[in-house]
Amino acid sequence: MASEIELRLQKMGIELPKPAAPVANYVGAVVAGSLLVVSGQLPIGPDGITIKGKLGGGVSEAQGKDAARLCAINILAQAKAALGDLSRIKRCIRLGGFVNAVPDYQTIPQVINGASDFMVEVLGDAGRHARYAIGVAQLPLDAPVEVEAMFEIS
Amino acid sequence: MASEIELRLQKMGIELPKPAAPVANYVGAVVAGSLLVVSGQLPIGPDGITIKGKLGGGVSEAQGKDAARLCAINILAQAKAALGDLSRIKRCIRLGGFVNAVPDYQTIPQVINGASDFMVEVLGDAGRHARYAIGVAQLPLDAPVEVEAMFEIS
Amino acid sequence: MASEIELRLQKMGIELPKPAAPVANYVGAVVAGSLLVVSGQLPIGPDGITIKGKLGGGVSEAQGKDAARLCAINILAQAKAALGDLSRIKRCIRLGGFVNAVPDYQTIPQVINGASDFMVEVLGDAGRHARYAIGVAQLPLDAPVEVEAMFEIS
Repeated sequence: MASEIELRLQKMGIELPKPAAPVANYVGAVVAGSLLVVSGQLPIGPDGITIKGKLGGGVSEAQGKDAARLCAINILAQAKAALGDLSRIKRCIRLGGFVNAVPDYQTIPQVINGASDFMVEVLGDAGRHARYAIGVAQLPLDAPVEVEAMFEIS
Repeated sequence: MASEIELRLQKMGIELPKPAAPVANYVGAVVAGSLLVVSGQLPIGPDGITIKGKLGGGVSEAQGKDAARLCAINILAQAKAALGDLSRIKRCIRLGGFVNAVPDYQTIPQVINGASDFMVEVLGDAGRHARYAIGVAQLPLDAPVEVEAMFEIS
Repeated sequence: MASEIELRLQKMGIELPKPAAPVANYVGAVVAGSLLVVSGQLPIGPDGITIKGKLGGGVSEAQGKDAARLCAINILAQAKAALGDLSRIKRCIRLGGFVNAVPDYQTIPQVINGASDFMVEVLGDAGRHARYAIGVAQLPLDAPVEVEAMFEIS
């Protein structure tokens, strides 16, 4: 039987991708006791990275928000690969959002909302998380956004 | 009866503010088992953000340190809102300090000391934490400092 | 009796240093339940910081990778000081890698691999961790790399 989370993803028309292979010598997620820690995810789709560049440079706020949403989808894909069943998720504890930004870029929270909104949309109250969001000098693959996550699991 | 921590805050003349509403779709803090994870806090006072800009730009080291201290006060305000009683704090496990800095800025640790010193002053030995401190390209609201935190609680 | 990890370090010709004193008011590592959280470590050797500057500036990818490896050695030194015995490490849960990079620097993951490869080399499967890696505007002491870590312990 599909979990409530899986059903909500279906209704949203989202099929979780095969999780992206780490671009280096690490793993996508680690389970430790009641914690699931997911590696920083990039906006990678079936054909590779979907967008490159900086917010405040060539990437618009709307594009950045979409990229953050895709990072969050990839986080859930990693969670599913690690847990088997998404219904083991009790809570999204925290998201960490990194925005590849020019030094005078102002709307970092709005970009990371693409990830935060997705978590709440899919997980409901269990998706309401703590968060930090920062503008960084550069990200792997020149991605505009990277998001890392920690969940409480059963 | 006021906890030891509350008494220390009183002696320091600090009244914890109403915790800042998150500037986006997330919550100020999450309790998961024996962990309390607090969202990245900005130097926001009763009248909004108290200072903007970059270290090595318009913001001095002393101003940055004050801003970091205010971030730490706001962390404790979030902790109180989440826990009810600050005496549930067993330990500040870690602070993560983000300094909005020009690329050649040198004294990042000194700025984040404003937050670290406050935690030790208020929590005593339980305030002695692990830490990372980094200079970032930009922060929400053009804040000079953001600090996130993780506590062990009972 | 030396633990398996200690023996592997010996075979690699690595003697763990006396852990670097924090450059500010915090501690090198905190144990909380089954978690060990290690402060961000810099590439500091017996004579101080071994290299300064930015990736994409004066620091090459190979030098950055070496610096990241030294950060990881220092992480293990902090872990040993905190735990007494490295055999208490059950798993490296996550590394967080910060690369001091110019805004158009591209190969952040390759630099942080210096830390990731070391963890897997020393800890074996228990060293396989989640990870995030980002390019930042500046780091303490103008270090090219900083790495923070979280372990599961027994």
